[in-house]
Parts: sequence; structure tokens; C-alpha cells
Amino acid sequence: MEGEPTRIMMGVNESTIKGYPHASISSKGAFEWTLQKIVRSNTSGFKLLFLHVQVPDEDGFDDMDSIYASPEDFKNMKNRDRARGTHLLEFFVTRCHEMGISCEAWIKRGDPKEEICHEVKRVQPDFLVVGSRGLGPFQRVFVGTVSEFCAKHAECPVLTIKRRADEAPQDPVDD
Amino acid sequence: MEGEPTRIMMGVNESTIKGYPHASISSKGAFEWTLQKIVRSNTSGFKLLFLHVQVPDEDGFDDMDSIYASPEDFKNMKNRDRARGTHLLEFFVTRCHEMGISCEAWIKRGDPKEEICHEVKRVQPDFLVVGSRGLGPFQRVFVGTVSEFCAKHAECPVLTIKRRADEAPQDPVDD
Repeated sequence: MEGEPTRIMMGVNESTIKGYPHASISSKGAFEWTLQKIVRSNTSGFKLLFLHVQVPDEDGFDDMDSIYASPEDFKNMKNRDRARGTHLLEFFVTRCHEMGISCEAWIKRGDPKEEICHEVKRVQPDFLVVGSRGLGPFQRVFVGTVSEFCAKHAECPVLTIKRRADEAPQDPVDD
Repeated sequence: MEGEPTRIMMGVNESTIKGYPHASISSKGAFEWTLQKIVRSNTSGFKLLFLHVQVPDEDGFDDMDSIYASPEDFKNMKNRDRARGTHLLEFFVTRCHEMGISCEAWIKRGDPKEEICHEVKRVQPDFLVVGSRGLGPFQRVFVGTVSEFCAKHAECPVLTIKRRADEAPQDPVDD
């Protein structure tokens, strides 16, 4: 009766909060919400596909104070980026594994909203889940709105999950 | 383990196609998709809440050629509107009943995007499903975009489901 599982793609990213090397509040919130409200006890009915898009500029921000003296230094930087991305995905994959939900995870580099829509086209999930900070129009100007862009342009249904108000950090642009 | 069912609110509307007194293509598509991809075999894990917002102007369009000669004429018109709304909801409720999914349905009058967000606030569903014609920016100017407004303003997660390209009618503004 059940057939192929419903394939849910989730865009996940790192927290922007300094010294908090984890999934962003909105990614984690969207993930937990999806488990609780969509997957529920039907763990074999769904497969989660985690896409993390690394933004070259953003990820390279800490390198402002770095000195590159050899090709080796660049290689180290790239390895560190890779390690951070892998660490992020490990969180989600481990959680799925614990719950017996099948999943896949991968990393892309580029502009998140464009990479997400591109990967939707390639992978053809049943739907896409994107977390959102849920900022007001003024705050939005500065941070872009991946979720809005995807809801409009992704070639599949899109579930937009705003961050819970009681989970917003001191600076709501942080996540 | 399962606890309370996940309460899904769906905004549904009538087709705009003349002589086609049924649910719109995008409403029906979003509903069938939700059953197939979210509810799946877990029929006791979900409860569907159908909200139909009747637009006074739109619903009164056919009355351009009508003549009102007595209070009775207005009452007849209102009864006819009510009958149409009830007929629409009956389609969804019957389908849920057949599948053993619990549901509720009701009608409001007003501006769809505002009534939907208002009802979300009042009823507090776990998430909201809205179908969308999936029109391009040019076509959108003329028809408004309930789904975009709700994705931004509704106080719950929002799942936007575009109409399938192969189901678009001759005039894509129709639905």
C-alpha cells in the first residue's frame, strides 16, 4: 500500500552565531518539526535528503586574518571548510539513523537559493523543506530570503517553516 | 507514540472555469498530493481542516445580469452562494470520509489571504497547505497571490503546492 517513500529535501545550514558550530536554529527547528508533524511514527514512509550549501564568501570570513604563504595553506582552508560541512550533516544523519529514517546528505558550494533550486531540479524530491528566520521586512533587506525565493522558484512543493519566536537569538538576524 | 494527530489546514476554492462547478484545479491537486505524499497510509495521524473563503465580489459576478426586486431575491442569492460553498466542501469531506481521515470544513467570507491568516491564528493548525497556479510574474499581477502572502504572514508553517504544468487549463489564469 505504501510504495516508494516520500522524498523530502531539506536545505540546512550552519548557525551564524559566533562560537556555535552547529546547525542553525531554523534548520534544526525545521528538521525537528518535520519529524514530529510529518513523519510521525511512519518512519519507513519517508526519506530525508539533506542539502548543505556552503557560501564561499561567508565560509571564508574567518580567513580575513589568515595569511596564505603556500598552496598548502589553501588546502588546509578547504579541508577545514569540508570538515565543518561534514560536521553539520553528521548531526542530521545521526539523528535520522537513531530514528530509523533513511536519508542522504551532500554539500554544494554557491548561492544557497540557486543551488537549492538547481538540486531540486536534479534530484526531484517530492517536496522541499526550508527553515526561515521569520524576519520582518526591514531585517530581511540585509539577509536575503532563501525561503521566499525557493517557494516561488523551486520545481516542487515547498514547506516554509519559520523559526519559533521563543527561539530567536538576541540579534534576530543571527540564526 | 503517535499522540494528537497533525492538524493540516487547507485553503480550498472553486474553479474559475465557467460551467465547471467544482474545486479549482490547484485546490484539488494540493489535496490529492497531501494525501499521497504526507498522509500516506497513516490516516489516523492527520486531521484535515478545510477552509473555503468566499469572495463577495467574485461570487456575486453572475449577479450582474440579475434583477433584485425584493428582499427575497437577495435571500435567494445568499442561499445559492451557501449551496455552492457547501457543494465545494462536500467534495473534500466525502473524500476524507472514504479514506478514514478525520476532517472539518467551514466557510468564511472576505479576502482569501486575510481570512486564511486570520483563521490560522484562531484555529492554530500545525501547518497550512495552499495550492498555487504557479504563474509567472506577468500573469501574477492580475490575479494576486494568496499563497505568497500566506507563506509570509501565516503564523504557522506553510506548504505551497504549485499546479502541475500538465494540468494547467488553456488560459493559465483560470484554475
